[in-house]
Formats: sequence, C-alpha cells, structure tokens
Amino acid sequence: MEKYRLRLDVNNMMAQYVGAKGFTEQELENAKADAKKAFEFVEANRGTGMMGWTELPYNQNDIVDDIIATAKEIQNKFDYFVVLGIGGSALGPIAIQQALNHLHYNDLPKEKRGGCPKLFVEDNVDPERMSALFDVIELEKTCFNVISKSGSTSETMTQYLILWDALKKKLGDEAKNHIIATTDAEKGNLIKLCQKEGFKKYVIPDGVGGRFSEMCPVGLLAAAVCGIDIKAMLAGAAYMDSISKSDDIYANAPLMAATMQYLAMNKGCNISVMMPYADSLKFMADWYCQLWGESLGKKYDLDGNVVNVGQTPVKALGVTDQHSQVQLYTEGPFDKVVTIIGVDNYRTVVKIADGCEDIPAVNFLCGHTMNELITAERVATEYALLKSGHLNHTIMLPEVNAFTIGELMYFYELETAYCGAMLNINTFDQPGVEEGKNATYALLGRPGYDEKRAELNQIPQKDNKFIV
Amino acid sequence: MEKYRLRLDVNNMMAQYVGAKGFTEQELENAKADAKKAFEFVEANRGTGMMGWTELPYNQNDIVDDIIATAKEIQNKFDYFVVLGIGGSALGPIAIQQALNHLHYNDLPKEKRGGCPKLFVEDNVDPERMSALFDVIELEKTCFNVISKSGSTSETMTQYLILWDALKKKLGDEAKNHIIATTDAEKGNLIKLCQKEGFKKYVIPDGVGGRFSEMCPVGLLAAAVCGIDIKAMLAGAAYMDSISKSDDIYANAPLMAATMQYLAMNKGCNISVMMPYADSLKFMADWYCQLWGESLGKKYDLDGNVVNVGQTPVKALGVTDQHSQVQLYTEGPFDKVVTIIGVDNYRTVVKIADGCEDIPAVNFLCGHTMNELITAERVATEYALLKSGHLNHTIMLPEVNAFTIGELMYFYELETAYCGAMLNINTFDQPGVEEGKNATYALLGRPGYDEKRAELNQIPQKDNKFIV
Repeated sequence: MEKYRLRLDVNNMMAQYVGAKGFTEQELENAKADAKKAFEFVEANRGTGMMGWTELPYNQNDIVDDIIATAKEIQNKFDYFVVLGIGGSALGPIAIQQALNHLHYNDLPKEKRGGCPKLFVEDNVDPERMSALFDVIELEKTCFNVISKSGSTSETMTQYLILWDALKKKLGDEAKNHIIATTDAEKGNLIKLCQKEGFKKYVIPDGVGGRFSEMCPVGLLAAAVCGIDIKAMLAGAAYMDSISKSDDIYANAPLMAATMQYLAMNKGCNISVMMPYADSLKFMADWYCQLWGESLGKKYDLDGNVVNVGQTPVKALGVTDQHSQVQLYTEGPFDKVVTIIGVDNYRTVVKIADGCEDIPAVNFLCGHTMNELITAERVATEYALLKSGHLNHTIMLPEVNAFTIGELMYFYELETAYCGAMLNINTFDQPGVEEGKNATYALLGRPGYDEKRAELNQIPQKDNKFIV
Repeated sequence: MEKYRLRLDVNNMMAQYVGAKGFTEQELENAKADAKKAFEFVEANRGTGMMGWTELPYNQNDIVDDIIATAKEIQNKFDYFVVLGIGGSALGPIAIQQALNHLHYNDLPKEKRGGCPKLFVEDNVDPERMSALFDVIELEKTCFNVISKSGSTSETMTQYLILWDALKKKLGDEAKNHIIATTDAEKGNLIKLCQKEGFKKYVIPDGVGGRFSEMCPVGLLAAAVCGIDIKAMLAGAAYMDSISKSDDIYANAPLMAATMQYLAMNKGCNISVMMPYADSLKFMADWYCQLWGESLGKKYDLDGNVVNVGQTPVKALGVTDQHSQVQLYTEGPFDKVVTIIGVDNYRTVVKIADGCEDIPAVNFLCGHTMNELITAERVATEYALLKSGHLNHTIMLPEVNAFTIGELMYFYELETAYCGAMLNINTFDQPGVEEGKNATYALLGRPGYDEKRAELNQIPQKDNKFIV
C-alpha cells in the first residue's frame, strides 16, 4: 500500500527556508527527547484507559461484516438515513461522506447514488432545522441512527424524543424498525431504551471517546449505508499505525508533525490552520478542529498545575480561502501554523476550454486543466507563506479514497495523542464541557440541579449601560 | 423598525463581570478618543475611495427594480441558478441563502421553493467539484451568474471558460441568454466579454470591494432569484446606518464592538470567534471571517511601519460546537473574544415530545421546546465562558429575517471600518493576495511573468530529510 502512503513535508517549518520564525535542526535535535517520551507514552498506553481507539483498526472486523449486511438491508428498505448525533458522532460521518461520496450526493437520483439512501446528519437543536428536516424526508422511508455513548446527550435525546414520537404516531409497532442505536454496551439511557423498545444496536467500545470514534460503528454504519468501503478505511488506519512505529521524528510522520506543533506553540503560535486543497476534504477540517481543540485545550496539566494550554484550530479551504483568509495569513501576525493538504491525483480531470483568444489575461488559462490550476495555486500559496516568513507545512495524499482517508484520520489521532503527551495533559477528557451542560440542566429544571440553579441566580445583574 | 433592532451586550467583556481579563470602565473611558477618531474617519470618508459601500443602502434603488424583474424572468425560465464567483462574490450569497431560505432549499420540489430555481454557488476550482456540478444541473435549464469586478479572477474565469464552452456546444446562439455578468461598469475583461457575446450585465459600483459587496448586484441578484426580499435587506442596512450616527460608544453599537475588539487585541487576544446559535446564521460566520480577516490582517500601517496586525477570525456554531470547541474556549488560553449571536424568536416552535417517563435524565427535557433548549444552552455557554474568565459578548437578533440580516451585515461592515481606523491601517485593500496570484500566473505560463518564474526557480531545493 506504499503507493497510497501520505507524505508530510515540513521544509517550510525550518529556519533555513522560512527564516526567523522557523526552527533550526538543533532545535529539532533538542526536542527529540520530548518526542521519544511522547511516543513511549502512546505505545505504553495503547488499548488502555481512554486509548481504546488505537485498537479500532484491528478489533472491528467481526462487527464490520454485520454492519455491511445491515447497510444492505437499509439500502433496500429506506430512502433516507438520518444520523442523530453531535460532536464526534456527527463530524466523522460528515467528513467521510464529503470525502468519499459524490459532492452533490443528496442531489442525485437514487440510482446514481448506487441505490443508497440520502444522508442527513443532524447535529444541532435549532427548531428551524428540525422543522426543515421533516420537509425533506418521508418518515416511512427513513432510518434513524441515534448515537450517544451515555444516552444523556441532551441534544441527541431531544431529537430522539421528537422523532420517536412522530414515528410511533405514523407507523405504530413498525416504528422500532426505523431506529438503530449506537451506544455503550451496558451503561446509560440509550441501552435501556434499546431493551425496552427493541431497537437494533451497535456498541461503542470502551476507551473510545467521541472525537476518536470514527473507526467504530459511530462512523462505520453511516459510511457503509452510503456505499463507502469501510474495510479499506480501516486498512488505511492500520497502515498508518504500522508506519508510525519509530520514536525517531524523521521516521514517524505524526510524531514529526506533533513535535513541530509543540515547538510552534512554545514559540507563541496559538493558532493551527487546516487548509485542504480539495472540496472533498472540506469537512475533514471540521473533524480535525474538534480532535485538536477538545483534546489539547486544557486548564490543568497532569501534575495539577494551571496551564490553560491549547492551540485554536481554524478551518480553511483551498483555493477558496485564498480570497478570504490568505491576506491575513501572509501579512498578519506570526501566530499560526498553516497545514496545507494537497492531493496528487484528483479523481477526475477537467480541461479548461478555449475561448478568450483576444484576452491574454484570461487566455493563458486555456489548454490547462483545473487540476493544474488548483495545484499551481496550492504551490503558490505555500510560496507566499514561505516568502512572508509564516510557518507552514504540507500533507500530500496520493489520492482521496477510503484507504487514504483512514490513513489521514489515524495520522491526526496519533499526532494529537503525541502532542498531548508532550504538553503533559490529559488528551482524552473534556471537563470544560460540564459547566455548560450543568447550567443547561439547571435552566431546564432537571431534578438534582438545584444548587447550580441557585448559583445561576447569583450572577450579578447585567448593566443596561453595556447593552447598546 | 425598532422592534427589529439588534442589541449588543458587552457586559461579559467588563472586568466587573468576567474578572481579570476584562476591561474597566476607565479603560473604556480612555479608549473613547480613539473611538471618536475612528468614527470621524468613517464619516469623513463615506462614499469616497473604497468606501463606496456605505452608500449601497441608498443608491441601489433603481437597480433593485431591474433585479427583481430579472429574477422573475429567471424563475420562469430556469430550474437552476449557478453563481460563479469566489471570496465576497460567493460568501455573501451563500450566507444570505442559508439565513433567509429553507435550510434544505435545494432538496425541496420546485413548487415548495415558491417556483424559484435551485441555487449552487461555485467558489473553488477543484475539478471534482466542477464535474459533480454537471451531474446535478441541466445546462438548458441553467442560468449562470459570472461575478468578477476585473474579469481577471483566475478561478471564476476558469469556470466561465468551461461552462461557456459547454453552453455553446449544447445550445448554440441561445447560450448567451444563459449568462449574466456582474462586473465593473467600464473596465476589465468581463465587460469586454459582455459586449462581444451579448450577455446581460449588472454593475459593481466603484469603491465597493468584494467583501463589502453583498448589498449591490453581487449579492442582490442571487437573493432575488431565490425569492428573498432584497428591499427589506437594504432597509435593514439603512436602519443600522441610521442608528450608528454617534461618536459615543454607548450610543453606537458597531463602534462599541470595534472598541472592545481593539482593546482586546491590544491585550493579546489575537482570535475572534463568531458563534451564532442558529443554523440559519452558520454561513454568516464565513462571510464575517473574510470581512474581518482580509480587512484587518495587514503588514503595514498607514504610516508605512511594519505592524503585522490582524485578529484571526474563527467560525463556530452553537450549540453544535459546544461538543467540539467549547472545551478549548473555556479551559484554553485567554487569547480570544467569543461573539455569540442569539435569536429571540426562531421562525418556528418545536415541542419536545414525551416518552421517557422512567428515565429522569432524559425526561426533564419533555414538555420543553427546542426553542427553550437552544436558548438555555446559549445562556449556559455565556455563563461557562464568564465563569472561566474568558471574554465574550452577545448580539441578539429579534428574529432572522431580511431586515435583520441587512442590519447585521451593515453592523459588521461598520465595525470593521471602525476597527481598521483604530489600527491605523488600510482596511480596504488586500496586497497580500497578490503574491500568490502572481506565483500562480508564473506557474501557468501567463505572458509577462517571466521574472516571477525566475524567482520561483530560485527557491532552495527541498531537503528530503524533512519529508516524512
């Protein structure tokens, strides 16, 4: 699978190329010990605690056959497949669908979708959006995949309550065959509902947090339903794992990437821009933003010190954002690392037609392909960043397919784990989300949250002077 | 129109509420002189130079009637309307469509779209995307709106070349009736093509840069074609203009917002997060990101000093990104200002059904509405940010409609102009985009770019050691 191996190019992070803000080889040399320690931490903790995700490329084989068979049934029986989930339960499926299916998948007639259903991923509780969904699906032809490890995710359970009620009213006893739950094997509310109502269920393995869950049923079911080769995805992840077995940054791409980001953070780069040059990878940036932001944004380190660390991830799209963000990236502060994702071979070639012979400022495009244009623009942006002295590096994918996407996602999972280890933080929790959750519970009157309600009542009154 | 007036609430930016990172009233007092100067700069330059956009709420009336009549013709004749544009030519139309039309507009049958055509906005040169477009439109039923002030935007002209060729091959002489150009009145390549080929054209007025162009034909045509009340949009912009006539930050909301961001930047907040709590406003954040990033990201100030300023805009979505980014926002560095956009009245109410009487951790949701839930989550996030000491402020829209969207966009245009004036930079140019453009031209062999080609050939060879 060497021909599908992704390549990480960090030349433009080095002082000899990018100038004063870059790193010297000596700095890299000095960081090697930290990198080695991070590598050893990840190896030592594989498959334990919240690092169950490292095993997903290997331990999902049994379940994969069941998923593929179920996906076939769903394709035969339903015209719409709706994911109810939020965070990792949504961002992975969205990223995969955009990467590996037709860019206007839902706009195609069913036969051009290979007989697969339309896909909607509902990851918000905006009433306007819920109402809009009812306008474009037919309940009797819709399968809902409710995803929540605990079954207490307010957003997802809200959607479930509304749709389950609608299904029952419309379909009676048949309703239960329209819901598949993806949840914990034993604990939580959703598994109780499965038992009570008789829903089919898939299990989220232990030690797999939401943002690391794409390679388990959370991501695999929706992908398989939409015709994606999930075995190839898992094989790609396993391949990336197999080529990341060295504690030497020059022989382990995710470790090199993590080290670079760690060094950049120490030099004040508090922003990480993810800028793929492919519409297919547009939502891979969203998935990355959760992985990176939620994993590394932490108040405490493992020794209990207040550190308030975390690089803020920013999603961008090449070439589109050259006309939106690149002005800032090239002329603004030296506060960011730009990661460009390039593609060697797009899955189609589009020739730019002739037709402006008398206008040289347009005619030079004629005879080229769009492929040449997007590639030239990527190289030009790398050059503009280099010339302005802004840190950037590039990941090249030989092409976008299920295998390379599995590779890329596992690359980022490893990079995140390594970087978190270097920062000496807990990469796999999200304590900061609790405050908002608890305040929501209190505001909506959930039993047991009286204390939080009292706390909220004590917020000082707002001053009208500061409302303009 | 008082009932549709938006409200800016900056309480959570003040030290008395948010703690050490916030501002004191004295700091605001001290900033008043800068604010006043910025206000006076904007007033003095209204309608001059690159500030032609300030007049758009007033000087587009004549053209609006023509646009509305043309939109009706397009609705009668075509089933697809495709915008070819990039940057402001795309981000404005996308933001408006998402805000003011059905959230699954393209998925509806034509009669449920009020007889309006499907809308596609093509703002990239990915060959896979161009190819995908051909799969979901019928050329003989498609109207293309080619938008480029200069007619030399490589991306847009590439799309034009490909589609014009396809139209001519399929439709012969009739092809020209499938293209509408939006461009400069006199200069550039696109106006030449209009004259040569006989395309209908709309004019981008002088002094209106791409990111300030939504209220001229760039944005108005697509909106009108999709059934949006463009007169109400313009009225909303005019209303915001009318309530921003004071040099006192306590009586001019965009000026207060600009002052806050300016002070925050001076205190090291190099990140500005835009987080609307409404799917309808999701792409308003993308539009804002261009406006803010490209306007304020500058290497030089007006006195020629190297300053490398600019806040990096980040787009987020409530409540969705509570499960992706809020961990970082509440526990991470004190390096950002979070702007939340709330909505008083969503355009529909969705009740959360009963159905989990035996599971209290879910049942507390029952009987509430999604409207209550999304509002509680917004308030809870503001509280979590406040409690963790992170700067945040909120803009409340009474509801999302054409009037309030016009207001909101003009609010941000003014805020950007004020903030740029405080930073003493040129808010309205984008010199940093040139480097990449020129390198692209050189790489594709455009005549006249030999020198740049030579420069590119002199980039030091990459070191394979740094490609992992």
